[in-house]
Amino acid sequence: MTLQIPEPTAVLEAATRIKGLANHTPVHTSRTLNQQTGHQIYLKCENFQRVGAFKFRGAYNAVSQLSEAQKEAGVVTHSSGNHAQGLALAAKLLGVKATIVMPDNAPAIKKAATAGYGATIVTCPAIERENVCAQLIADHGYTLIHPYDNPNIIAGAGTAALELLQETGPLDLLFTPVGGGGLLSGTALAAAATQPDCRVIGVEPATANDAQRSWQTGEIVRLTVVPDTLADGLRTRFVGEHNLPIMRQYVSDMLTVTEEEIIATLQFLWTRLKLVVEPSAAVALAPAFTGKISQPGQRIGVILSGGNVDVSQIGQLFAS
Amino acid sequence: MTLQIPEPTAVLEAATRIKGLANHTPVHTSRTLNQQTGHQIYLKCENFQRVGAFKFRGAYNAVSQLSEAQKEAGVVTHSSGNHAQGLALAAKLLGVKATIVMPDNAPAIKKAATAGYGATIVTCPAIERENVCAQLIADHGYTLIHPYDNPNIIAGAGTAALELLQETGPLDLLFTPVGGGGLLSGTALAAAATQPDCRVIGVEPATANDAQRSWQTGEIVRLTVVPDTLADGLRTRFVGEHNLPIMRQYVSDMLTVTEEEIIATLQFLWTRLKLVVEPSAAVALAPAFTGKISQPGQRIGVILSGGNVDVSQIGQLFAS
Repeated sequence: MTLQIPEPTAVLEAATRIKGLANHTPVHTSRTLNQQTGHQIYLKCENFQRVGAFKFRGAYNAVSQLSEAQKEAGVVTHSSGNHAQGLALAAKLLGVKATIVMPDNAPAIKKAATAGYGATIVTCPAIERENVCAQLIADHGYTLIHPYDNPNIIAGAGTAALELLQETGPLDLLFTPVGGGGLLSGTALAAAATQPDCRVIGVEPATANDAQRSWQTGEIVRLTVVPDTLADGLRTRFVGEHNLPIMRQYVSDMLTVTEEEIIATLQFLWTRLKLVVEPSAAVALAPAFTGKISQPGQRIGVILSGGNVDVSQIGQLFAS
Repeated sequence: MTLQIPEPTAVLEAATRIKGLANHTPVHTSRTLNQQTGHQIYLKCENFQRVGAFKFRGAYNAVSQLSEAQKEAGVVTHSSGNHAQGLALAAKLLGVKATIVMPDNAPAIKKAATAGYGATIVTCPAIERENVCAQLIADHGYTLIHPYDNPNIIAGAGTAALELLQETGPLDLLFTPVGGGGLLSGTALAAAATQPDCRVIGVEPATANDAQRSWQTGEIVRLTVVPDTLADGLRTRFVGEHNLPIMRQYVSDMLTVTEEEIIATLQFLWTRLKLVVEPSAAVALAPAFTGKISQPGQRIGVILSGGNVDVSQIGQLFAS
């Protein structure tokens, strides 16, 4: 099967599709952050996106392009995170039935949030998720909407960066977190379409550097265990087949950050910038925040991917 | 001594003074909040203001209007909260020496934040604060910048509401929290100047309803003990002499909310709207959030006063 890799212009088309449905999220800046880092930093606040994360953008872009027959049959995915909620809401808005396969040990609050958008939740042991999903597709003719390894998910995810680039004007560097590579490859396409001189950089937790290694070698590195990192949105074990070619062509660098750097950056975002963001969002800001950018005075964009967190757990991290 | 009560137009003049120095903070809305309440709610996010609270507005407006001799001598106040930081930053920007009297048991983090803006911190037992302040004024000729009982502090505080009213167009109701009455009276002046049909409403914790009683009777009610409420910014024992006449003339109603209502509203603001706000900010949203507005379909503004909180403490409140 030949992979259908989206062109940079696919992000522009996605932006037209989601207009008025996804939130045009605000861009925050901070005198303190700029002073501390010596850069001019623009934070794209996808924590203020619908369902609390950028995931709604791709989900809506993907579901809206299904055929009438596919819409009639319904969609399915396996996720316990932001993609589940994004897909549930997108499907609801488009009048499409959504079924979400979740591990039976997923937090009750995540099941409730996803069910709250009208999706049907099917639970099973975590290791059975893909099989259960495949069986549902075989039985009911559902269309799988993969969380990241899907051209329309990628193009939709890129609309966050597109809005940022259009609002800030020329940027030198643009950082995103990397899990499966949906946000990163979409962001890279957005920059390629509108600001090809802007260097797009992916950031991973050091404990989950499969994407960095895949990008370096050109072969998808598959971790055998779920990586241990606070950034729960980035515990993906491998990037997608649609994602890696885009990353190889358009991404300028891949960096890693330590758990301590993630926590320090997260604490700054919460306590000084007053933003409820998830650890994955802090990953993207961490290189600039911790002084890892060698060239001074850069104009830097950062995609703060989302804000779905357990506030009581975050509070414990910051307890002195 | 005749009180100098500011006119509504004083807020317009203050807005000119702080332009480009205070942040023009964003207004957030939420489909979920509107759906749940049946109203159209506009949240003025002063948690994104400089120093993390609306207090910078009044402080800058007040210090900038001092005579050259007063600026030369310096300013003083007693506060361990947001006003301390607001005054410290305003004085620094205007090249004025600021001295802040704090109780010796004030959290180290608050002392450090205030000192970080270049202010001199003087500590003493909490009960001695006013005396120590008076002595500093006698010894050094400092000008007292009272946290709320000051016409320029009031007019400056009103600029948050002014920006909100200019951005949203006609509002039916506009809510603020009430401690000493600075934000409420400034907000009432802003509405009087630009939207006299908008009903301005102050909200207090039920345990600290001195302002409601003062507004009802026309006499300043002075609590004998510091009220017990999570909303630490509203533990003020009495409203100011400049504030009450404005409240009596321009404020339409005064409401109270319970501690449980404050926590429920706060949790919604953090977990659903992804805003790090302080409990005092939740007080202002609580009547609308908990269904206390009898008339349906209102256009409602709420001033979210600030976001200076101990994240680890808030996390504990939300622990299930």
